[in-house]
Amino acid sequence: MSLSFEINSRSGNARGGRLITPHAEIETPVFMPVGTVASVKGVPQDILEDLGAQIILGNTYHLYLRPGVDTVRKMDGLHGFMSWRRAILTDSGGFQVFSLNELRKVNEEGVTFRSHLDGSSHFFSPESAMEAQIGLGADIIMAFDECTEYPADQARMRASMEMTARWAARSKKYFEEHKSEVPWGPASEIPTLAAKSAARMVHPDQNPTSRANDAREMGYPVSGDSTQSLFGIVQGGMDRALRKESAERTIEIGFPGYAIGGLSVGEPRELTREIVESTLEHLPRDKPRYLMGVGTPEEIVEYASLGVDMMDCVLPTRAARHGLLFTSEGKVSIKQARYAQDAGPLDANCGCRVCNRYSRAYLRHLYASNEVLAQVLNTIHNLSFYLDTMRRVRHSISLGEESRFLSSVWSRPKP
Amino acid sequence: MSLSFEINSRSGNARGGRLITPHAEIETPVFMPVGTVASVKGVPQDILEDLGAQIILGNTYHLYLRPGVDTVRKMDGLHGFMSWRRAILTDSGGFQVFSLNELRKVNEEGVTFRSHLDGSSHFFSPESAMEAQIGLGADIIMAFDECTEYPADQARMRASMEMTARWAARSKKYFEEHKSEVPWGPASEIPTLAAKSAARMVHPDQNPTSRANDAREMGYPVSGDSTQSLFGIVQGGMDRALRKESAERTIEIGFPGYAIGGLSVGEPRELTREIVESTLEHLPRDKPRYLMGVGTPEEIVEYASLGVDMMDCVLPTRAARHGLLFTSEGKVSIKQARYAQDAGPLDANCGCRVCNRYSRAYLRHLYASNEVLAQVLNTIHNLSFYLDTMRRVRHSISLGEESRFLSSVWSRPKP
Repeated sequence: MSLSFEINSRSGNARGGRLITPHAEIETPVFMPVGTVASVKGVPQDILEDLGAQIILGNTYHLYLRPGVDTVRKMDGLHGFMSWRRAILTDSGGFQVFSLNELRKVNEEGVTFRSHLDGSSHFFSPESAMEAQIGLGADIIMAFDECTEYPADQARMRASMEMTARWAARSKKYFEEHKSEVPWGPASEIPTLAAKSAARMVHPDQNPTSRANDAREMGYPVSGDSTQSLFGIVQGGMDRALRKESAERTIEIGFPGYAIGGLSVGEPRELTREIVESTLEHLPRDKPRYLMGVGTPEEIVEYASLGVDMMDCVLPTRAARHGLLFTSEGKVSIKQARYAQDAGPLDANCGCRVCNRYSRAYLRHLYASNEVLAQVLNTIHNLSFYLDTMRRVRHSISLGEESRFLSSVWSRPKP
Repeated sequence: MSLSFEINSRSGNARGGRLITPHAEIETPVFMPVGTVASVKGVPQDILEDLGAQIILGNTYHLYLRPGVDTVRKMDGLHGFMSWRRAILTDSGGFQVFSLNELRKVNEEGVTFRSHLDGSSHFFSPESAMEAQIGLGADIIMAFDECTEYPADQARMRASMEMTARWAARSKKYFEEHKSEVPWGPASEIPTLAAKSAARMVHPDQNPTSRANDAREMGYPVSGDSTQSLFGIVQGGMDRALRKESAERTIEIGFPGYAIGGLSVGEPRELTREIVESTLEHLPRDKPRYLMGVGTPEEIVEYASLGVDMMDCVLPTRAARHGLLFTSEGKVSIKQARYAQDAGPLDANCGCRVCNRYSRAYLRHLYASNEVLAQVLNTIHNLSFYLDTMRRVRHSISLGEESRFLSSVWSRPKP
């Protein structure tokens, strides 16, 4: 068994389900914290577990450059390398490579790009991106796609969408031929680390203080014949017809899950919503649907209500580093002098370890003093807020509270 | 009760004891992690508790500049401000002010100095240093002293020592007249925060995973009439006779504990040891003895064996930020390429949460990638190593193993 997905409850278009991967059982809709280079910046793995993170995301582009796929592979894949026992998803590297702008050159074969670290030249093709992701060994990996820039004209959107479709077929072909090479799969040549890793999973170092319902989210042994799962990505720019065609062509190739890519690239949020909503109509109802790179707390609730099952975003972690904190009463810019003597918790409605223990005055002081603990605590709170938001979304869906869906999980008045 | 100290066991000159302050019961000899601006850099308070830190140090100079004594006082003192329920010691600001070199000017009255943050001009006297430390509200505070530079000639060492003695008398006078003004003492005017803080202490948020013998180290309620304790500081440069005279004059003023200051200022380590050993002979045997600003793991064991009860040093935390890690097999510079694919733990003999979970390869990657988690994990390990070292020292003393004292706690061959 490499992936299974079941839908247990519905509320309008929203779906509550369970995604089972080789390393974890994940309740959906799920928010996936971003751990770019094998670390969710500033947060130790045991705290991520306590927060109830079921699956995290790694960035293939960054990991490929540093520490390199070979190193990660030798450490039993990303799970062993970063000692994360639950699920991992890696992106294909496509989005990041396309973000390099001046440093890349695209043709049918793939993309030549220069490292942002040292300017060295590299090449990603659907095949090499699969090779890298197999070596990294995430539970779920992504087809190599072209993220169409915004704005783009009709011809450009079509050409880009069609290339993504051809690359999806090449990604799948390479993956099917090489999926047994995953570091934790049947072809694993590192029994010592694998055994160590398996032992850890059988006897998880479970923190008794973590929520009881996290228990089933703990990692469990990887069965000998499980492999990774490759998801396809729908592109097509901001054109609904092209999105429909991209969905159909990607489904025709056939994947166990489908992502919507190429959004949050500068377009207005109303347009994002339109494209998400119309694209979802063309995706199989029985397969997980992953909306890449979104969004604010309000947005992730909204996309879940539209029927999205998986989301990821750097916003909670990146904003935390800039002192921007999400709370039940809206955003707080903790650097402001008004908080200098504020003895209250960051969010009185939040039960996270930061809100339970520290005052706004202390968080403000840590930020103003450029203390590393500011990033650590801010990130823990923001992730807790996102994960709790999704937990409430799942609870709401399980109750079938269609009419009160949005209001029950996000009670703040709209701006 | 503001301070009590009892010696329970001896091994040679080493003493195993118990220091009871208003916020915690501390087993000695103790190593105190440094939390300069109300944060042990990169480590959340609950992890410090798990590590078994019984008392931490705050720097008055830094806290005076940012966030300012007034802010800390309003938050129930440092304990409330940083949500640390165990004991705290603050230095007098003297050492840091004297480190400013070009930015300071000393006379009999006190020291005028410029802030390293914004160049603004400030003045510390024995009286204002006491006022600041009373406002910060640590359990133990330090007399305002002059840290004699090294090298210094005989006349300079004597003059400096004599000024420290006069400043000690002024420090004590001000402290005795104002000690009731401590934020958590009888004169507290912030009942809400005090009540909140007291409630926390009665029901400590105790982590069940922490070591069982940490339980008695947890904070407990501050009785209504307890105050801070002021320690005196012995100076006298590198001259044994002046140190003796300084000890005698400081003891004549009378303090509940005595520190040895003015060491680790550039002198050879053999000289440090000589001065420590000879000064200890002149300090009361029934009072706690605090050696300021030392040292390496080997050194803290050695000083404990000489009869020192308390030590602090930035070394474990600062070295961690530079990737320099202390292990049972010696120092490890984790940035080295040789660790890039080293799947073993940092220290196979260490039971800390870092060594239990992460590989050298991962720690090396985090450091090389400039990830904040590198500082967090490296600091946790180094502090764990120091605190465990002291735990073994205490255990060894309690067994009275005089002959095997050093070898049992520090088995690494001398370089």
